[in-house]
Amino acid sequence: MTGTAGEQAVTQPECEFCRDVVEPEDLLWASEYVVARLGRPHHKGHVEVVFVRHEEDLTTLTDRERDAFFDDMIYVAEVLKRILQPDVVNYQMLGNWIPHLHWHIYPRFRSDPDFGNPMVIPLRDEPFEPQLVAEEEVAALRRDLRQFEHDRCPHCQRRARRR
Amino acid sequence: MTGTAGEQAVTQPECEFCRDVVEPEDLLWASEYVVARLGRPHHKGHVEVVFVRHEEDLTTLTDRERDAFFDDMIYVAEVLKRILQPDVVNYQMLGNWIPHLHWHIYPRFRSDPDFGNPMVIPLRDEPFEPQLVAEEEVAALRRDLRQFEHDRCPHCQRRARRR
Repeated sequence: MTGTAGEQAVTQPECEFCRDVVEPEDLLWASEYVVARLGRPHHKGHVEVVFVRHEEDLTTLTDRERDAFFDDMIYVAEVLKRILQPDVVNYQMLGNWIPHLHWHIYPRFRSDPDFGNPMVIPLRDEPFEPQLVAEEEVAALRRDLRQFEHDRCPHCQRRARRR
Repeated sequence: MTGTAGEQAVTQPECEFCRDVVEPEDLLWASEYVVARLGRPHHKGHVEVVFVRHEEDLTTLTDRERDAFFDDMIYVAEVLKRILQPDVVNYQMLGNWIPHLHWHIYPRFRSDPDFGNPMVIPLRDEPFEPQLVAEEEVAALRRDLRQFEHDRCPHCQRRARRR
């Protein structure tokens, strides 16, 4: 596989995430293996890290893809920590609504009503108060994610070596 | 590191999970890197996969430990799928209550009231109706997890090669 996720062709046209990988809204970063973009803003800084190809099961990835899927999630989380300064970070992989493999990253803030407990996630048709990331924070996330290096993180360095 | 997780010494005596790694209740499996055990039964087959040492951040693991932490979670999930036959499997890593690194694996069943949506998890002091795994299922989980091989899963084979 060459290039970045955004350069791939749609794998399954009926899959919302396959389309999003090619034309992502709110794109933060595209690596060889994932597209990272802002998710539903029921929690501030909720990011989805979507695998480049339509796969529904972790066991269908190659060793390298699986390592990269995890490493790239950690990389995105590290940059989120640096820019948004959350009190803790939570991770989720569900696949209940869209089976295409993707991580949810949730920066959690002490000021949130559900802080200290599992995320309370509104259902698909349930209204919520959007918790938006400021424009300058989005710009900083994009800038830092595209730097492709993270001096404090050995796993980002492994990812950089792998390229 | 040699031996299995259960043979380690307590890293931080004040950490509930450090104590559990050494004397786990409801143990299903101990590898070189993790202890897998039944979690709170608010969902049937909820399993916690706890890292062997007290670490609170994925970036403090070595490359090998991080790969193993993910591989071993996948391995446990594959065995859960085989024995419990859930309709889908969800994964979570939170660290809100206990920061010691651990995965939550949730087999999800069509018959559950929250099926198809993110897990509704009772708070620590909230009562819930226990959804227990049958004794013969626990025995089958232990037996299959201890076989250390999973013929359908390339990642289990990688783990086996690593040993």
